[in-house]
Parts: sequence; C-alpha cells; structure tokens
Amino acid sequence: MISKGYDRKAIESLFSPRSMAIVGASPDSFVSRRVIDHLRKYDYRGRIYPVNPKYREVQGLPCYRRVSAIAEDVDTALITVGARNVLSAVADCVEKGVLSVTILSSGFAESGEEGRKRQAELVEYLTDKKIRVLGPNSAGVVNFKDRIPAGPSASAALGIVDGGRIGLVSHSGALGATLINRAQDRGIGFTYFVSPGNQMDLTSEDFIRYMVEDNDTKVIAAYLESVNTRGFVEAVTIARDAGKPVVLFKTGRSQGGKRAAAAHTGAIAGQEEVFDALCRRLAVVRVDDTDELMDLARLLVEDRSPGQGRLAIVSDSGGAAGVFADIAQPLEIPLAEFSGVTKEHLLRTMPSFGTVQNPLDIPGGFEIDPNIYPSCLKAVLNDSGVDILVIPVTVPMGRPAELRSKNIIGVWNETRKPVLVSWMGGSLTGRGAEYIDRAGVPNYPSPGRCIKMVRYLLDYHQMVARFSPLNDSPVAKEMGVAMRDPTLRVYTEHGSKELLARYGIPVSREIVARTTEEAIQAAEELGFPVVLKIHSEAISHKSDVGGVYLGIKDREELRNAYDDMRKRIESAYPGLEPYEVLVQEYLQGGLETIVGLKNDPQFGPVVMFGLGGVFVEVLKDVAMRVVPVTERDAEEMVREIKAHPILAGVRGHPPKDTEAIVDVIMKLSNLGMKMYGQVAEVDINPLMVYGKGQGAVAADALVVEKVRG
Amino acid sequence: MISKGYDRKAIESLFSPRSMAIVGASPDSFVSRRVIDHLRKYDYRGRIYPVNPKYREVQGLPCYRRVSAIAEDVDTALITVGARNVLSAVADCVEKGVLSVTILSSGFAESGEEGRKRQAELVEYLTDKKIRVLGPNSAGVVNFKDRIPAGPSASAALGIVDGGRIGLVSHSGALGATLINRAQDRGIGFTYFVSPGNQMDLTSEDFIRYMVEDNDTKVIAAYLESVNTRGFVEAVTIARDAGKPVVLFKTGRSQGGKRAAAAHTGAIAGQEEVFDALCRRLAVVRVDDTDELMDLARLLVEDRSPGQGRLAIVSDSGGAAGVFADIAQPLEIPLAEFSGVTKEHLLRTMPSFGTVQNPLDIPGGFEIDPNIYPSCLKAVLNDSGVDILVIPVTVPMGRPAELRSKNIIGVWNETRKPVLVSWMGGSLTGRGAEYIDRAGVPNYPSPGRCIKMVRYLLDYHQMVARFSPLNDSPVAKEMGVAMRDPTLRVYTEHGSKELLARYGIPVSREIVARTTEEAIQAAEELGFPVVLKIHSEAISHKSDVGGVYLGIKDREELRNAYDDMRKRIESAYPGLEPYEVLVQEYLQGGLETIVGLKNDPQFGPVVMFGLGGVFVEVLKDVAMRVVPVTERDAEEMVREIKAHPILAGVRGHPPKDTEAIVDVIMKLSNLGMKMYGQVAEVDINPLMVYGKGQGAVAADALVVEKVRG
Repeated sequence: MISKGYDRKAIESLFSPRSMAIVGASPDSFVSRRVIDHLRKYDYRGRIYPVNPKYREVQGLPCYRRVSAIAEDVDTALITVGARNVLSAVADCVEKGVLSVTILSSGFAESGEEGRKRQAELVEYLTDKKIRVLGPNSAGVVNFKDRIPAGPSASAALGIVDGGRIGLVSHSGALGATLINRAQDRGIGFTYFVSPGNQMDLTSEDFIRYMVEDNDTKVIAAYLESVNTRGFVEAVTIARDAGKPVVLFKTGRSQGGKRAAAAHTGAIAGQEEVFDALCRRLAVVRVDDTDELMDLARLLVEDRSPGQGRLAIVSDSGGAAGVFADIAQPLEIPLAEFSGVTKEHLLRTMPSFGTVQNPLDIPGGFEIDPNIYPSCLKAVLNDSGVDILVIPVTVPMGRPAELRSKNIIGVWNETRKPVLVSWMGGSLTGRGAEYIDRAGVPNYPSPGRCIKMVRYLLDYHQMVARFSPLNDSPVAKEMGVAMRDPTLRVYTEHGSKELLARYGIPVSREIVARTTEEAIQAAEELGFPVVLKIHSEAISHKSDVGGVYLGIKDREELRNAYDDMRKRIESAYPGLEPYEVLVQEYLQGGLETIVGLKNDPQFGPVVMFGLGGVFVEVLKDVAMRVVPVTERDAEEMVREIKAHPILAGVRGHPPKDTEAIVDVIMKLSNLGMKMYGQVAEVDINPLMVYGKGQGAVAADALVVEKVRG
Repeated sequence: MISKGYDRKAIESLFSPRSMAIVGASPDSFVSRRVIDHLRKYDYRGRIYPVNPKYREVQGLPCYRRVSAIAEDVDTALITVGARNVLSAVADCVEKGVLSVTILSSGFAESGEEGRKRQAELVEYLTDKKIRVLGPNSAGVVNFKDRIPAGPSASAALGIVDGGRIGLVSHSGALGATLINRAQDRGIGFTYFVSPGNQMDLTSEDFIRYMVEDNDTKVIAAYLESVNTRGFVEAVTIARDAGKPVVLFKTGRSQGGKRAAAAHTGAIAGQEEVFDALCRRLAVVRVDDTDELMDLARLLVEDRSPGQGRLAIVSDSGGAAGVFADIAQPLEIPLAEFSGVTKEHLLRTMPSFGTVQNPLDIPGGFEIDPNIYPSCLKAVLNDSGVDILVIPVTVPMGRPAELRSKNIIGVWNETRKPVLVSWMGGSLTGRGAEYIDRAGVPNYPSPGRCIKMVRYLLDYHQMVARFSPLNDSPVAKEMGVAMRDPTLRVYTEHGSKELLARYGIPVSREIVARTTEEAIQAAEELGFPVVLKIHSEAISHKSDVGGVYLGIKDREELRNAYDDMRKRIESAYPGLEPYEVLVQEYLQGGLETIVGLKNDPQFGPVVMFGLGGVFVEVLKDVAMRVVPVTERDAEEMVREIKAHPILAGVRGHPPKDTEAIVDVIMKLSNLGMKMYGQVAEVDINPLMVYGKGQGAVAADALVVEKVRG
C-alpha cells in the first residue's frame, strides 16, 4: 500500500470531475459502454474522452490514441483495460498530469500470486508520483448530489431519490449497488458512493473522511471487509467532532472462533473483540446485518436526540403494542410513564373501552372519530416524560390506512423527538407505507427490527456522550510502523513487577535469593508465612515444574521446600545455572482478578480486565478498552463483566475494592501509552483484590518486551 | 375457563359452517356489515341469517328476531351485540341447538373488574351446555381453503393467494391480519386463521390441533401471549407425530427480568426459561420476531431435510458471498467442501478469473454466457457433500436480473435439498423477486435474516431427531389440577437425603445425634475428619447462624465445635428445643455442582443443572429440561452449560465424572415423575463431583414438600 495521506483535491476530482477519460473504451466493452451511456443519460456536463488506439470514434465521441494526446485538461481517468496494460495506461495518465485514476480492471492482489506481483509493480511505480489511485478492482464512485456516475456498478441507481444525506462506502461494489437500490426504494437517498476495491492507494477511510467534510452528508454508512486503523481513527474522530454518525457493517466476526483458547490477555483479546472495543470508544455503531446498516443510517440522518431514552408505544392494536413492549424490555429500553395531564387528555379523547397506559392501544378503526388517532399521538409526544415514540401500525379494519400515514407524518414534522414507525401491513394498507417512506419518517416493518433501532440510537448517543478522543494515542500516531516483526523477550516475575511498580502499580513484597540462607534471611525480613518461587527467565510456567510453594510457615519448612525445589528443577532443567529463587509475602484472602495489556497488531494497546481462573480461561468474561482509558472507562470495565456482582458483593462475597482495580487499570493504560512499541504484553495474574478500601496487589506478573530485531 | 376438551366437530362448524347467524346485525354496525359484505364478496354458499329484533331486513336479507326463530338448522353464530346482551344471545343459540358461537364482542375479562364478572357469569352458564364458544373478544376465523370469512379482521386478505399450506393462530386479531397481509404479498398462503380472543372455552391449542389434523395444513404458525400447557403438549405432540412443524412467536420473555435473583432452583428456572426448555423438548421452534414467524413457516412448508447441514453459498458477488459465510460461522453452520468432480465442473464452466471455492462467486454479469449461472448452481446442488444451498443475488450489472430468478426456480424445482434465496436488490432487478416468491422459493432479502433461517431449519430437524414424547409425563396428565395452593413443608437436610437415597442418588454418610457423646460416637463410626451441622426443620440456612463446622479433625475439636454451636444456636433461636446435630463425613476435593428439581406452576416438573456457587448465583449458567429426561437429554444438559470445560477438564481442572452427574439428573427426573404433586422443589447443593469413575455425592440437600391444605 502507498501511504501518501489524505488528499481532498484528488477525491474531489473523482466525485466531481470536469472532464473524464475512459481508457480502453470500445464499442465491444460492456463496462465502457455502460459508463458512457450513464454519463450521457444523467446529462454529465463535463467532457468525456474515450481512449483507445484502435478506434477513431466510440459511441459518437472522438476517440484518442492516448490520454496524453488529449489537448484539454483531464481531471480523472477510468481505466478499463486488461490487467497487463494497466501500468502503461496509468503512466500515460501521469504523463498527461491527470489528478486521479480509477482502475476498474481486476486481476491484481485479489486474484493470486501473479496479480499480487502486478499490483506490487504498480505500487512501486506510483510511489514518487503525484497522481492518486482508486482501485484496482474498484467499481468506481457515484456522485448522487450532482448526478455524476463515474463507475459502472451503482450508476443505474442514480436519480431515483434526490436530496440524499447518506454517504456509502462499500468494499463490495455489487453489494453497495444492491444496498443503494433497496434503500432508495424505501425513499432513502445518498450523497456519494464509493467502492474502494483493493485500496492500493486511496482507502475507505479517506472516503469516510471526505464524506464527513461534505456539508450535505449527514451520516456515513460503511460496509468494510478490513480496516486501516490509523485512517479509521482519524476519520471517525473528525466525524465525531462534526457530529456525524458513522454506521459500520464489518465482516470478520467469524474469525473470532479461530483463535486458540489460552489464558493470557493476548489470546482472550481477539482482533474482532478489540475492534469492537475500539468502535465503542470512537462512537461507531457496528451493526449485525446489511439491512441494519441502512435502517440505522436513515434513523441517524434526522439527528434527533433520544434524551433519557424513555419509550412510548402507541398502536392501533393492543396485541402489537404488547409485542413491542415485550421486545423492548430485555434490551433495557425504559418505558415512559405518562404524566397526569397526558393521561387526562387521553381519557377524554379515547373511546371508552380503551385503557390509558404505555404501551397505548387506541382501539377502534376509522369508523370512530378520525381525530382521535392524531390527537393521542400528539398528546403522548408532548409529554415531557416521553423521549422516543414508536408507532406500530397494523391493518386497520376500517377506512384505508393511508389517512393514518398522513396523521403520522403530521406529528413527525411537528416534533424534534425521535419517532419510529413500524408499518406492518402490506397491500391492504394502500400507499401508506410509501407516504411514510417518502416523507423520510424512519419505518421498520417488524417489531424486532424497529426496537433494535431504538437500542442502537440509545447506544450511539451514549457512546457520543462518553467519547474520549484517541488523538494522543500511539495508535493514531504510529500505527502499523512500530509493530513489525519484533523479537520478544519475556521478563522474570520480579523484573515484571519492578516495571509495574515504576508505574505505581502495587506489587507483592518480595526478595530475590540465591542460596537457602539468603532465602531464610529474606523470609525473616518479609515475615512468615511466605511463598517460594523459582525465578528464571527460562521458566515462565513455574507451577508446571513444581516451582511454587505457598504458605511456608517457618525456617524448617522453607529449608525443605528449597531443597525439594532444587531437586525438581534440576531434574526438569538439567544444567540450568545459575538460578535464583523469589521469596514473597503470602497474600491470602483476596479475590483473584486479572488485569492485562496487549498490543494488538492492528489496533494498538488494549487493556483487559476480568476475574481470575475459570472466569477468564473458560468463560472469557472480560472487559476491554483501547488505551488511553479515562477513569470512567475503567469504572465501566469493572461493571461490564458478567461476574461483576462478585465484586459488588453477593451472599458470601463482601464488596471488593473496585477503586483499587480502576487505579491499576489506569496505571497499566499509562504504561501502555508510554511504553508503546516496547511492551508487547503484560499479564497481572492474579491481581489480588481485597475488601473496600483495602487495596489490590499484583501477586504474579509477566511482561513481554519487544526487542527490535 | 371451561374444560370440555377437544371438539373437532365444533371447530369444523366454525371454519366450514353450512349456515351462519349474525346476531346483532344492523345497517349501522360496522362489524356486521363487514362480515356480511365479505361473505357475499367471496360467494359464501351457505345461508346467512341476520338476527336483530329491530329490523325485518338487513342488507337485503330477511332479518330474524331471535336465533331460535330461524326454522332451518344453524351451524354457527357470530355474536356482535354489546357485552351486556351477550349472555342472552348465547342462551338463544343454545335454545336453537347451534353447534358453535363466536363472540366478537369485547368488554369481558380483557377490560377490568366488571368485564371479568361478566365473563365468569358466561362461564358459569356454559358449564353444562353442549355449545362451544370462540372468544369473547375474538376476531373470528377465516377459512382460506374454502374462502369462508367468519370474522371481520383478516377477511379482507381472502383470495390473494390460493393453495396456502400454513395455519395461523394469533392471539391478536389485528396482528394476525397484518401478518397474513404481508405474507400473502410475498406469495405465502394460508389454510386457516383464528384469533381465539379471551379463550373462555376453545383455546389456541384446540385450533393448533385441528390444523395439525387438516391434510392441507403443512405448518402451524402461532403468535401466543400465553399457553395452556396441557393442550399445548398434546397438540404439538400430535403435530410431531404427523411430521408438521409448529413455529411459535410468544411474548413474555420480558418477564424473565422480573424474578428475584436467589440461589435455588425455583428462582433460576423462570417461567420463560422453562417454557424454552419445553419447546426444545417438543420440537417447537420459538422465534424472536413476527417476520421470523412467517419466514420460517414458509421454509418449513417445503419439508426438505437439511441432512448434515453442510451449507454451500453461490452468489453473483464475491462480497455478498463472503458476508453470508461470515454470518454463518458464529451460528455454527458448517460450510460444505466441494468434491473433486464439482470443482472440475466449476473450473470448466466458470470464467477464468473466478476462484473455485465455497462460498462461490460466479463473476461476470449476463454479458458472459447465460448458461454459466444455472450450470454452476446445478453442479453445486448435485454435490453429495452439499446439504443446503443459499443463493444471494445482488443487482447484476448486465441484463435484467429476471433471468436469474428463472434459473433459480429451475434448479429449485429439480432438487429436494433446501434452497434459500436472498434476493437483495429492489426495483433495478425487475420482477425477479416476485417470480421467486410466487414460485414458493424461500426468499429472505438480507444476509442476517437468511442465515438465521438456515440455523432454525437445522435446529428444528435436530429437535425432531431428539424428540421424546411427554405423553407419560405428569405434565400432560394432571397439569393445572394438582398444583393449586399447596402448603409447603421443608424437609431437614437428613430427611431430604433419605428421600434422595430412596431414589438411588448417592448421599454423604451421616448420622443424627442428640448429645456430645452421641456426636463423638457417630464421628468415630464415620471416621474423622467430619462435618458438624445443626439439624432442625426450623433452620434452613444453617451457615448463616453459625450452624456448620467443616473438617473437624478429632474428638476435642468436635467437642469444642459442639459447645460453640450450642451457644450460637441458643442465642439465635432462644427456646429452640429439642434440637439435633448431623455428623457427616467430610467430602473434600470434589467440584461443587448443583442439581435441582422444581415444579413449575405452568409447565410441571423441571430438572436443572449447573456448577455451584457463583456459577449459579451470579452467572445463572444452568441447563434445564422438562421431566422425564432421557439419558441423552441429561448428557446434553451437562454439555450445555458455559462452564462445561471445567467438567471436561481444563488446565488445573482434571476431567470430572460427568456420567455420575447424568445418573443423578435422571434419578432426580424419576423422583420428579413419581412424586409429582407431592414435591415442590429439590436442591442438591452441592453435589460434589469427583474425577472420572469416582462418582458424585450429595453433600447437602433440601426437599420442599407440598402438603394439601
């Protein structure tokens, strides 16, 4: 990959070129024909220059032998020639001084060894050139705002919906075009679309940033197969500052299952889990399905705040209203309590056989006074205890449902609160759903889908409120540079603790000894009972070789343990010399937790917290954050694990000193920041945690250092 | 509720009446007008008798003063009069000898105190009458097969799709009509619909059974707000025997959060969790959303076996194919491996730039040979290593997508393997989706939705394969009779263990003593070390009052412990006399598990298993089954808990004797069967489990007996 940084002007030339060369244009090429047809269909006002030495004219346009033979300025070029001819076509564009090219051709890194070589040659060639490249294997871009299709894939979707406010980045061109088509059928419009292909030069993140900076784009939706962390952090941080949500559907979760199940931080914090943590940190909502990508983008385009999230449900069916409430509860969406004034209004307005409660069922079809329905909707929305309104609409028995859609559009226009419709009926409800969609009212036709959007809306606003930038983080500064191929060096336990102590993390009192007598002296200095451990860089799994003795009560026991250990070690590691022992205070009665740090190769330093033993090893019950973490982040980590009640205090478990844990997490985060590039991994396992106010102590620790090879 | 049992003939008179009275018919009644209009619109061939003393004619039909004044036979009557007049209208029908009535009127148990009283009067009146009643507050029934709408709600949906094979039961009339409308728009047809309303007499379960017995109904879909367990077990067991799937969307999951968090079986096994266990047992698929109800019913209508579940994905977009595979993996759906023959065929057939793998991307639009696409689909389906085919379709760049839909319908008709389409495009794909839907090919337009259906399909077939009937179970025999208002009696620990021992469950060796000397004698008989426990029916939380001493090594320690305990107990329970102690062998080194039995008031006896302590109390990591359980059920329970690796053996935890656990679960299930109606709850906590082949022993136990008041 080429790293030339963000280039606003080059991207502009892709989306809004004043002139465009189509390299490889031919009457026989499906792709070039489609591109030129669409440019004309949507009245492209710039100049189109077909380029092909074989023709003098293509589709009625004068055809050029080479791009450099065109007399006028050329802003951008679309390259459609076979893979083998791409390099010379690009060189031709460079010669002409074209600002950007889109390589639509495939046959590069996506397609085996030969393609990878071809792409590497192209990268090599481009390193010192000014020109910027989209692709190869890209489906191009579409500028919906100005109706400029500069690529074959999503062009046909142009002009269906105008005034769109969503920018879409999709690694798959076909999937992107498909999502646009379906969304537009629901009245959802776009500003820009890009399919970045192999991202040899310009990446998804460059385009996300460009869309963030565009005034008309309110929400960026992205389907990504991979992420370039540095650009991603930059782009979404700018998005956050601009108040523009980024909604992400990313594959790769399936890789979660592939990692080995070991006990240390590195193995627990798989890449996808770390990426999830990064997204939470950066207020990026990661959704679970392609439909959700569009569903949520449409909702967030409105920029309506969900306040405290208190949900009201008003339906024309008691059954439907109940279903929505039932689905909302396990998602921890609070139901609003109607005020006295609202209740009075509803009682006055509703038919006598209705019950005034939330969820609210407005009984009767349109055979009853048609003003009842909008009046009840308004009353509920005016209630200051209601933050969000969900309106399930079934197939009413009476007059056409269309009137209902008009009522809803009316109240939606009058409020700034989020309103979500679930128009559940089909052909029997006339054009109601169409009116709702056209008016831009968020509409999700099933209870599960609708309520999940409410949950995402709350998540997004909570994440934004807690946002702490990662600008200062090593992730943003050095990503992808420092981490290549380090040699790893494992510290001894004592060495590890010395490092932790320097960062203010409390560690067990302990003394290194070389002989029985030194060990006895150390034990007396520390006070019995003590722990005796083998201490050698060569042995990291101490207990596996009989290198740990707990709760030694006196000199005699210590002497025996020492002799015993010597024998075992000598038999397990014949010739291991010289070696030391560690004499340690015996920490009893605390709760075993684990706090860890790992440098993810893609996302940088991450802190992890969980309870020790089976909680981490078997249940993988851990919380993670990308560093640096704030105090609030660390507090959330402590509360986030499923086993949290054990820390908070359940029967048989008095409350623990969670503040001490928070302190250790923050100090480890600090170590992760300061020693970025040097430390590969830290395990504090166990961190013994005592009762409220009694602190926490690292009883064992392991630091893995990176040594530049 | 009236309990008159299943009545096939009465239900037949509701769905297929030869004549029908409309009680309360009037030119001003919206409901009666709609009913009569629809009966006429769909050419009802039976007789329609409007009944209303105020009119001589309604909608051009002769109107009768009373039902009993009609000379001819009346099969069924629809009652639309006000709540207060319903009883006399029903009595009129009884006088006439009508087979069944549907009470459409509301104002009964669903609407407060007065309504409840009114319904109770109706129940009282009907107890000794032969007539069967649907409702009150019902939206009636619709017979789609014979085009007979006998209720106002879903009538309008009649005639849109013929030849339907799904029966729908929906507690909500409006929601049912809405689901039918949306489903029919997708080409999904129905046989029968019923909205059972308040279920005063005929229940959802009666109708499920009727639909199971109907030859044309292949799948029963149900939206239920509550379940009558006995009828449910009967109906779905018959469904299972008939090979007809029952798909269920049931509210009530939100109640899960309401139960108190305590440590015993009763509190852990909430009603919804038990119901989930019952559904798994009975091969009922419980879905999460209303759309899923229809999505899955359509899929199961085809009755195609998913074999070993090996999934092939063939798409026109590599991006889309990858997304589907990515979503399938965490759901544990195995990807098929193509055979050599298939690979060869694909290599020969596909354009040179494609890669032969699963998921398969068939590159190129229709500009390339249009035979490639169907030929690849066929080759994959013919591969004996492929069990299920999913076909994601995007917006192809070339000619209309419609041709693709024809290819798919072609291969779908030729195979008996499950084929699921995900037609993701919209208006740009022409009428392709419509053709697919009309042809009955299951089609789900987003990856998440489509792959979830594959998961449900596998779940359903796995549950069917494991099905063990509950016919012999007390649930089916006595449900709802034995469990009313029992007085509870708590057994002592020793008494509890005596009961367990009688059912073959191994318990700790222990002796009850009344004096220090008796205790010492007992300890010597058992052998030191021992455990000393207070033993009194009045004290069930023994350790809370200092009533448990572990690991007593000798006589002296025992004597001290005994004195100490006496003092504590006497201070905590002044005047408690006489009281005993329990001297017990000291069980060490085992893994603490909990095995429990509870009698759910709705679903009968349920066994529960989990690891002890925080695993149950904090993490609620338990497995449950409705009794009786087979050996395989019990084995599954052991494997099902998240903490299972601790039993199987992880680092520091050698494998445990899971066979001994299975044995205890089955014996407790047996106890639950034999003592149904007598035992309310059993906790074996802890059941100490030892290494492979070393058994398991109940170290403490609690039995709660029901004593008929």
